[in-house]
Amino acid sequence: MIPMIFASDNWAGAHPAISENLAAHVHGYVSAYGTSELDRKVEERLSEIFERDVAVFFVGTGTAANALALASTNRAGGIAFCHREAHVNVDECGAPEFFSHGARLCPVDGARGKMDAARLEAEIRRFPPDVVHGGQPMAVTLTQATESGTVYSLAEIEAVASIAKSHKLPLHMDGARFANALVSLDTTPAEMTWKRGVDLLSFGGTKNGCWCAEALILFDPAKTHEMHFLRKRAAQLFSKSRFIAAQFDAYLKGDLWLDLARHANSMARRLAEGIAASAVSRLAWTPGANEVFVILKRDVAARLEEQGAVFYDWPAPQDLAASLAADEGLYRLVTSFATRADEVDQFIAAC
Amino acid sequence: MIPMIFASDNWAGAHPAISENLAAHVHGYVSAYGTSELDRKVEERLSEIFERDVAVFFVGTGTAANALALASTNRAGGIAFCHREAHVNVDECGAPEFFSHGARLCPVDGARGKMDAARLEAEIRRFPPDVVHGGQPMAVTLTQATESGTVYSLAEIEAVASIAKSHKLPLHMDGARFANALVSLDTTPAEMTWKRGVDLLSFGGTKNGCWCAEALILFDPAKTHEMHFLRKRAAQLFSKSRFIAAQFDAYLKGDLWLDLARHANSMARRLAEGIAASAVSRLAWTPGANEVFVILKRDVAARLEEQGAVFYDWPAPQDLAASLAADEGLYRLVTSFATRADEVDQFIAAC
Amino acid sequence: MIPMIFASDNWAGAHPAISENLAAHVHGYVSAYGTSELDRKVEERLSEIFERDVAVFFVGTGTAANALALASTNRAGGIAFCHREAHVNVDECGAPEFFSHGARLCPVDGARGKMDAARLEAEIRRFPPDVVHGGQPMAVTLTQATESGTVYSLAEIEAVASIAKSHKLPLHMDGARFANALVSLDTTPAEMTWKRGVDLLSFGGTKNGCWCAEALILFDPAKTHEMHFLRKRAAQLFSKSRFIAAQFDAYLKGDLWLDLARHANSMARRLAEGIAASAVSRLAWTPGANEVFVILKRDVAARLEEQGAVFYDWPAPQDLAASLAADEGLYRLVTSFATRADEVDQFIAAC
Amino acid sequence: MIPMIFASDNWAGAHPAISENLAAHVHGYVSAYGTSELDRKVEERLSEIFERDVAVFFVGTGTAANALALASTNRAGGIAFCHREAHVNVDECGAPEFFSHGARLCPVDGARGKMDAARLEAEIRRFPPDVVHGGQPMAVTLTQATESGTVYSLAEIEAVASIAKSHKLPLHMDGARFANALVSLDTTPAEMTWKRGVDLLSFGGTKNGCWCAEALILFDPAKTHEMHFLRKRAAQLFSKSRFIAAQFDAYLKGDLWLDLARHANSMARRLAEGIAASAVSRLAWTPGANEVFVILKRDVAARLEEQGAVFYDWPAPQDLAASLAADEGLYRLVTSFATRADEVDQFIAAC
Repeated sequence: MIPMIFASDNWAGAHPAISENLAAHVHGYVSAYGTSELDRKVEERLSEIFERDVAVFFVGTGTAANALALASTNRAGGIAFCHREAHVNVDECGAPEFFSHGARLCPVDGARGKMDAARLEAEIRRFPPDVVHGGQPMAVTLTQATESGTVYSLAEIEAVASIAKSHKLPLHMDGARFANALVSLDTTPAEMTWKRGVDLLSFGGTKNGCWCAEALILFDPAKTHEMHFLRKRAAQLFSKSRFIAAQFDAYLKGDLWLDLARHANSMARRLAEGIAASAVSRLAWTPGANEVFVILKRDVAARLEEQGAVFYDWPAPQDLAASLAADEGLYRLVTSFATRADEVDQFIAAC
Repeated sequence: MIPMIFASDNWAGAHPAISENLAAHVHGYVSAYGTSELDRKVEERLSEIFERDVAVFFVGTGTAANALALASTNRAGGIAFCHREAHVNVDECGAPEFFSHGARLCPVDGARGKMDAARLEAEIRRFPPDVVHGGQPMAVTLTQATESGTVYSLAEIEAVASIAKSHKLPLHMDGARFANALVSLDTTPAEMTWKRGVDLLSFGGTKNGCWCAEALILFDPAKTHEMHFLRKRAAQLFSKSRFIAAQFDAYLKGDLWLDLARHANSMARRLAEGIAASAVSRLAWTPGANEVFVILKRDVAARLEEQGAVFYDWPAPQDLAASLAADEGLYRLVTSFATRADEVDQFIAAC
Repeated sequence: MIPMIFASDNWAGAHPAISENLAAHVHGYVSAYGTSELDRKVEERLSEIFERDVAVFFVGTGTAANALALASTNRAGGIAFCHREAHVNVDECGAPEFFSHGARLCPVDGARGKMDAARLEAEIRRFPPDVVHGGQPMAVTLTQATESGTVYSLAEIEAVASIAKSHKLPLHMDGARFANALVSLDTTPAEMTWKRGVDLLSFGGTKNGCWCAEALILFDPAKTHEMHFLRKRAAQLFSKSRFIAAQFDAYLKGDLWLDLARHANSMARRLAEGIAASAVSRLAWTPGANEVFVILKRDVAARLEEQGAVFYDWPAPQDLAASLAADEGLYRLVTSFATRADEVDQFIAAC
Repeated sequence: MIPMIFASDNWAGAHPAISENLAAHVHGYVSAYGTSELDRKVEERLSEIFERDVAVFFVGTGTAANALALASTNRAGGIAFCHREAHVNVDECGAPEFFSHGARLCPVDGARGKMDAARLEAEIRRFPPDVVHGGQPMAVTLTQATESGTVYSLAEIEAVASIAKSHKLPLHMDGARFANALVSLDTTPAEMTWKRGVDLLSFGGTKNGCWCAEALILFDPAKTHEMHFLRKRAAQLFSKSRFIAAQFDAYLKGDLWLDLARHANSMARRLAEGIAASAVSRLAWTPGANEVFVILKRDVAARLEEQGAVFYDWPAPQDLAASLAADEGLYRLVTSFATRADEVDQFIAAC
């Protein structure tokens, strides 16, 4: 039986190369709490990849990376601007607010998961710096690839960054699907981040083939000292840190991470093409990375689920909701490094 | 060259059986965020081990388990009572306070890492429930085995618990070295915890042969619902939770965890006996688990370090400090599942 | 020169009867921190007024009362539902989130400052109790009178309360302008609060003729113990608490508070009638208490300000914005216990 | 009947000049939230008094001033050093920790309420800046006059400040009894604060004759912007701020504040002399300001209380406890601006 699991990229296991590298580091003593040679090696590799010295903080979850990034920008009555559908805003149970001692997320609208630059500007302007009642802006955060499976172009990132800079706000990128976006744009990590004005990056490995490997990357070395304490206080400093380092070591070696992302994206394209060609389904919008949003009749969706397919209902954005028929729903399908072509083909056939 | 690494049990890697089980679960899709069959299986196994239904929350670090446990007992102006040298008090960078929104730890004295019951009672009484100025007691937490490598007897746990209960305070046990204490007492998990009055347990696997496997165990089901949100908000809900479950699965299978702890403890005893027999060193006190505290002349310690031995200086408790010669220091040596007899013997010989 | 100050009811001073009662309590020793006879007397008077035993907590600001009320309902990842324009949401600089350790406010839409009951229900349903990712509902808070100067009818309060109850959520009322709403509805404090399902009340005196007198009133005695610690920890327990008690003592004596509110409301009606009758201005909507929202041409507004009138621009709600001419703006005018009829008349004349 | 109330200086009411000035500002409209002319005038007066530009933040309680001061120095895992018996450590129900998001207070010992400089240095050194586990120093706070009624000399303040500076830590002074200490030292506000290295000051008026008038004073203008938001978020920005300003206006006029403090101190001296001369009582130590610590037989204390005297039992510091007889206790007597000589004399006679 061929599985048809498109629930999430975190339903996959780990890539064998990563698993094998973990096993290779099972023996022997190394110093704890992120001070081992392997930790250093991975940090250096990331500096190479980003074409400059970066400070790297391994953490256990993407939520931790995001919440710590925002915590480091904290101000009293602080407000971080994000897309309305951003993971920080809808899927982290208040972790960003908790880590930031009650700072607030201000949702910004924009089509298909991307903040509209003009709306962002307008939202920030609602909080003039000399008016104490509403609070004060503290950061802007964007998600790349977005929760809608789209990808900010370099120019779009720059547009957001320039608004952030004009208000002296740091810019964070939630890169839970960083690799998928990167290969989609066919650009370099440096171009997609600090060269465009990104100050802090949640660099995700888990969804793209690791067991549990997330890193918070700081492009501003002035924040490094405080982040060590923020991470430790947040219970995110792992004693056997090498187990995260070993994953990243294999992940980054020989550009495995890019290959895995290319595979996931190509599976998404295959899925999208099949859906677009089908009589009973249509694409909600063109996927940019490894998430495909599909409009299906509800009975078709139910039938697919009966046949073993797993995927999620998704709340339709307002502009799309109007164009859905009463018996139609929006569904999200996610591919990963582990998705096989025959899974996709069987799903298309089952449609 | 034989290593002589006694720095900490977290300098070791992982036991092969645990590593192999991880690799065995590398393939295939399973549902995320702690909902897989493997997660359920481990929870059931822990209920078996504890001889009652328990709620199990996997987290990434021992600090997370401790801080979440205390957070679940939170009150405004709350005060948690712990030994002065407890890990929560000296080694967690304020995580318990942060997770508990500013609750305070009140250190309690007592010889060799164990809270003195009378001192605990006296400290709690400093905060009468109807006086608002000083804050209000919220929890008691003890460490088993202690940071001094000693072990509370069952009667001692019960004494602490009965004080906690008489003030209606929940009792938490930091079991980062739970297995080491358990085999040292030759008792059962149930006897050492809820049968003695423990309400929440940080059940550690990392120091005893896992990569990264910690669980917060609640004996009071009324706290379960809130803990799900506390853990998620603290960024401690892992998407690929099976990677923790797989470790615990192997760890608990066929009582591997007890065997590993017995080995570590026996290596500590071997070390202790060698030290006691040596002309140039003496035991600071009798070890109860896998930590040995030794008094060495500083030049002897320096020479051992030159020969490759790794171990830490330790701040001497006040009563001991008085009995140290000017050229002597207190040192901590920790054994683990990975410690070999020849390491111990070489260290003794090097003395 | 007659002033035309309609900026806010907090630009007024204090009513002479209140000021005189303060002076009457200037001498002599009384016990501190809210334990004096006068404190007790005011608490009893409030129990009389509310027709049941209530727990009363004096605090210094309305923001403190609101933030403490929400803090007492706190859950991990908690979400409090309020109107989008509520004071807690737009004018308290994140105090509710800070006091609640990062709990979140979820804005609910509805015309003229009142939450639409169906929208409230829909927003709460976005957070099913068994899904951890989005957080969990913790409270509903409504403002009476609203920030738009309207008043919830008793049936409207009950509708909101019944939704809150059906989700087991406590209901808070921000009564910064409680008296103005009460006399507008011509009902009793009990009818407008606990008889309709309100659990916690911010009972404001400052805007209605006190210097600084706010009280948090709890209808659920089970919350009283914890609130003492919450208030103290929030630095809101005043040592010379009698100075707040003395204000409330005079405020509540002989129903002065109701007389003051009736006066402010009648001045608002006089203002509204004059504006409605004027050729150059119109009412944005009918005022329910002591705030009047007016549509003026911008040059008329500027001319009035030159003549000494003080009032604020107000962001137009979306439905109204569409009906404004390009040269028109929305303005808020607030009356108070201190507003004189000749001020109102002169303002109308100046229009 | 002559009262004998020595419970606390906050049992007194308000000085008539302050009460009258409040009444004088009862009428008329002024702009709210600390922006009135009277607010400005008081700020300028304080700049005059401190011989430099200072930023002034009125707040409602001394606890608020202290907690906001420490919050402004906040770091992750931060530790503020204070005397073991400091008000922040024993009487503020965790407000400093709450406002600082879980920062910790580290008690420093020292005789009679004053931190011992060498102990302070030793405590700070326990937290080396590159070790993440224990947390990081963030501030030093001293109390002037101390909770033991003693006063740091200028040289002693400087000694503490120089240690703080050498660790790059800001120095806060809790001046709940600032005036009492100032007149005791017969120095100037500038000399006792910023000229000695104090960066933030809680400037108390309440205990010395105001109803409710506390100010947080910042000597470092770089912190001013953030403090506006910290204060507002903490619900400590009063809408009718003029009611605090009016108190300070009268308090500072013609050096009333110094006269009131001189009176309170002289009453304390009169009390101390009487006690020293009595056969049944003795001074625990020489008072420096307006608090007198007395050793009485418990039955004498009970008899005095029966005769109407009010004063508190006080926990004896360890060094003193040893010298107390079994039937003796330590008691605190506080004088204030309102204490009359005949009260003191009657108390002495009653002894």
